[in-house]
Amino acid sequence: MSTTQGGRFANGVHQLPVRIYYEDTDFSGVVYHASYLRFMERGRTEYLRLSGVDHKALLQGDMPLAFAVRRMQIDFARPARIDDLLSVQTRFVSARGARIEAHQSILHGEELLVSAEVQIACIDLEGRPRRLPKPLLLLLEPFLVGQ
Amino acid sequence: MSTTQGGRFANGVHQLPVRIYYEDTDFSGVVYHASYLRFMERGRTEYLRLSGVDHKALLQGDMPLAFAVRRMQIDFARPARIDDLLSVQTRFVSARGARIEAHQSILHGEELLVSAEVQIACIDLEGRPRRLPKPLLLLLEPFLVGQ
Amino acid sequence: MSTTQGGRFANGVHQLPVRIYYEDTDFSGVVYHASYLRFMERGRTEYLRLSGVDHKALLQGDMPLAFAVRRMQIDFARPARIDDLLSVQTRFVSARGARIEAHQSILHGEELLVSAEVQIACIDLEGRPRRLPKPLLLLLEPFLVGQ
Amino acid sequence: MSTTQGGRFANGVHQLPVRIYYEDTDFSGVVYHASYLRFMERGRTEYLRLSGVDHKALLQGDMPLAFAVRRMQIDFARPARIDDLLSVQTRFVSARGARIEAHQSILHGEELLVSAEVQIACIDLEGRPRRLPKPLLLLLEPFLVGQ
Repeated sequence: MSTTQGGRFANGVHQLPVRIYYEDTDFSGVVYHASYLRFMERGRTEYLRLSGVDHKALLQGDMPLAFAVRRMQIDFARPARIDDLLSVQTRFVSARGARIEAHQSILHGEELLVSAEVQIACIDLEGRPRRLPKPLLLLLEPFLVGQ
Repeated sequence: MSTTQGGRFANGVHQLPVRIYYEDTDFSGVVYHASYLRFMERGRTEYLRLSGVDHKALLQGDMPLAFAVRRMQIDFARPARIDDLLSVQTRFVSARGARIEAHQSILHGEELLVSAEVQIACIDLEGRPRRLPKPLLLLLEPFLVGQ
Repeated sequence: MSTTQGGRFANGVHQLPVRIYYEDTDFSGVVYHASYLRFMERGRTEYLRLSGVDHKALLQGDMPLAFAVRRMQIDFARPARIDDLLSVQTRFVSARGARIEAHQSILHGEELLVSAEVQIACIDLEGRPRRLPKPLLLLLEPFLVGQ
Repeated sequence: MSTTQGGRFANGVHQLPVRIYYEDTDFSGVVYHASYLRFMERGRTEYLRLSGVDHKALLQGDMPLAFAVRRMQIDFARPARIDDLLSVQTRFVSARGARIEAHQSILHGEELLVSAEVQIACIDLEGRPRRLPKPLLLLLEPFLVGQ
């Protein structure tokens, strides 16, 4: 399997190619707005995987942990269409306490379609915020890009 | 909250109204084929709820159980469109061992859009088939409709 | 079909009941974050329908029009779970030019789960912003709630 | 972009890698059954793209055409889980008249998770079946695998 399956880092930015399928569009002819959140979640997941963090391991630790989106500010500037090949670009700006801050953009070629600021919380299975574990922070640190 | 929220039984058939939203359609202008499976799952869930069975209780029992679809034969006869108000019709034909058999149809007015035969398995959290618990069978029996 | 299917207005706020199904959840055990955007879109659609505006009519006019979300600020305060019955509350704060501004909340009983500010644009089928048609504005005006 | 993005043909079978994300799972801990239909649609779309057929071109021809699933027989043998990397395998068995017949399987490593027989119709925008255009048939023929 090629490494492009999970995207790659370039200049501190993780880039994930995402193809638009039937499932992503709606009757207005373009991509349904909530689909972009699915694409951005894929971007964050592949970012974490390349950093060495995977959801299954987090969930199966002594203290099972997961990530939850706490806040998003999203601009939908232009629509994508069926068959388009997009690039989801993800920067993690900070990771401390129980929180990760990310900046994400979705591009079609050079054109910016969607941009978002995302706050992610590390939570236990009762939904309570939990400090990011040290080993996880050590994995993430080399990839963090200050604003 | 009106009882129509969860549909109702009429002549042994459970009927659930489902409205078509943006999220259900695709760029071809009609409802995306996999959306009908979501509607049929809602129909089965509301059927079970009206019979007195709910997913949360099953999952929190001594032996946590869930339902999983094992097999479907689906005919997509005609498409639904945005704003349509459909009726999902669900009959449970049999419930024994670890298996429930259901017949489901989706109608728009008098017009048949989709019909399906569905085999559902009762499973534990490792995915192994488990006999339907006696209390659950007793709840379902009055609603079963032989073929 | 009961009128509760499409929700109702109370004190200028549109309230739509939404039941949580399998399709809305993810493996972390709670509702997937992008599902709340689908629920809020259903709320806006039912708000519009009760005001006399429907997507099909807009799309089939001389100048075919649709709505597109331009910007969202969303707070995900607490998670919903399988079987929960939520209430999506929608206020349209303003409607002028090509733009509608809405405030939306999702509650479980008295508990606030999600709140959002949403900017919606009226667009033509090339995606260009178009003034909200006069007849549509006349339909919406009685329902607007200033901030 | 690597060619693995859209999968590849091997021995007449198209193979598309699909990664499991949050969006694909449900609260029972495994992949939601309707998600597999989305994966199989991606497989058919990439099969068509590699054969030289794309949805946008079909839709923008003199006689706009699209594909619609008419019938599916699906077996859900075993579940996939978060982070799994699956392979969607697609064979087109026949293409004549207005209809394509496909066999599709979803594997995790060597393990068969889902298999399906799928009938796809070529339709116009009113949903009427239309003969597969000659140029499309010529593109598909080299890839057909008799049963």
